[in-house]
Amino acid sequence: MLDINLLGTGGMVPLPGRFLTALMIRCRGAAILIDCGEGTQVAIRAAGLGFKQIGVIALTHFHADHIAGLPGLLLTIGNSGRTEPLTIVGPQYVGQIVDCLRVIAPQLPYPIEYREIMSDGPVWADGPLSLSVQAVEHWIPCYAYKVSLARSAKFNADKARELNIPVRSWSVLQSGAAVEVDGRIINPGAVMGPARKGLEVCYATDLRPGEGLVRFAENADLFICEGMYGDPELYEKAVEHRHCLFTEAADMAARAGVSALWLTHFSPSMPDPENYLPQARAVFANTFIDQTGVTLRFQDA
Amino acid sequence: MLDINLLGTGGMVPLPGRFLTALMIRCRGAAILIDCGEGTQVAIRAAGLGFKQIGVIALTHFHADHIAGLPGLLLTIGNSGRTEPLTIVGPQYVGQIVDCLRVIAPQLPYPIEYREIMSDGPVWADGPLSLSVQAVEHWIPCYAYKVSLARSAKFNADKARELNIPVRSWSVLQSGAAVEVDGRIINPGAVMGPARKGLEVCYATDLRPGEGLVRFAENADLFICEGMYGDPELYEKAVEHRHCLFTEAADMAARAGVSALWLTHFSPSMPDPENYLPQARAVFANTFIDQTGVTLRFQDA
Repeated sequence: MLDINLLGTGGMVPLPGRFLTALMIRCRGAAILIDCGEGTQVAIRAAGLGFKQIGVIALTHFHADHIAGLPGLLLTIGNSGRTEPLTIVGPQYVGQIVDCLRVIAPQLPYPIEYREIMSDGPVWADGPLSLSVQAVEHWIPCYAYKVSLARSAKFNADKARELNIPVRSWSVLQSGAAVEVDGRIINPGAVMGPARKGLEVCYATDLRPGEGLVRFAENADLFICEGMYGDPELYEKAVEHRHCLFTEAADMAARAGVSALWLTHFSPSMPDPENYLPQARAVFANTFIDQTGVTLRFQDA
Repeated sequence: MLDINLLGTGGMVPLPGRFLTALMIRCRGAAILIDCGEGTQVAIRAAGLGFKQIGVIALTHFHADHIAGLPGLLLTIGNSGRTEPLTIVGPQYVGQIVDCLRVIAPQLPYPIEYREIMSDGPVWADGPLSLSVQAVEHWIPCYAYKVSLARSAKFNADKARELNIPVRSWSVLQSGAAVEVDGRIINPGAVMGPARKGLEVCYATDLRPGEGLVRFAENADLFICEGMYGDPELYEKAVEHRHCLFTEAADMAARAGVSALWLTHFSPSMPDPENYLPQARAVFANTFIDQTGVTLRFQDA
């Protein structure tokens, strides 16, 4: 299960009533935060979420609306009582840039481990939960993230009893190791079903559409994508500023075959993004903007 | 006239519904901002104030709740169309520290001039408007600010006509220079009345009470002072964290003989500061907390 909170829907500048775009994903007591613009710590409080469990902060790029909230958040995480290490993932030079910002947050009660993105692919994993990245086209190096929660195969308890495997050995087989029962070697394949689909959330902001991103988001359960402008007449502005129209995000969602598209990162010049939702839905029907939290669960299988 | 907006009343961390403490003072089309914590640019928008006219940003000290909003604000001031220089005043190393934070705001359409405070006294002036500072007791170097608007002496037009001074020479006399009329030297003293009291606002936050501050705030029209804790039972905590009780701020206001005391910088643990206002008023009657904007005008004289 993944609990997904979009902490804001703003792009460029924080506004009264519209926090900047940032994503919190919680899973099994841990939390991953993607992007941290000015005010993200206020948005986390407003959403009723905690700070102590934030173990990974991932940054798409180093424009201020995606990172300026970091020193304040790091201090607040410290005040929450965290002492376990915290990992900060980001483009090249992430350590140097965050260290600059930490001129006003030099002392923290937990260590920070930097993980610098050098190429597309996996960047972090902890058990079944993992992060991977894909470069996107923007003014400066910028990456889309995919949060994946792997699902283990199903254990066939009836089969295990039939094979007289003691219950104490079941977890060994579930973990992928073989066991010996009455002189017989039992391999996991004897009691485990086929691989099952996990959950995937793709988060992509500050970009022009591209084939690499479409392939990266393929079949995701949720595609959270920027839609800087709703009005299709702003196409040239979108190209100039390296951002997307709603309909361009919807087109990528349709081609990637995702289950749902959640639009965000709205221009401050667009007070009512919902006015343009019908045009996005004409391209990809399962598009939405009007949620703050979504829970994704494994499908029965 | 000074238009004074307290942009928030929070201390330590920004909260939903409570912006961090920062002060905007506007005078004759220009604006001075004192302190700039995370979210101050949002508070400026929420107050309906502009960005372009901000020509001076003064920092009391370098704790994050007083400076973390700076890179975002500098970018937003740039987006507002400002090209005139902007002065940033602050304790020693202000240039180095702000330059670190500007790792995410490297390109601005206006130059920044740093003015480093090295000792108590005047730090900036532009015509009748000026800033001076006084060191206060905190964890790290921290200064109180006084914004002063000088008032010119009154011009006696009847007297000027009586002396046959042409109207075109009046402004010369008003500026303090002498003029020659029909071979006579007329000095300003001939037509200008006595010096008149200007306006003074003292802003002091993050400190323990002290005699230096009381003298600095003497006779101010408005004393904006931190009151981190309302509950007098938190005295030891106030001493430990180098902050003030409401009653301590009120005591300084009474001893300084200020006209009014505006309390701010409330602890996040104090959701209802107004509950403690009566105790402050018992020490200094003209204490308030429930305003966002105040306009100070010259008294007739």
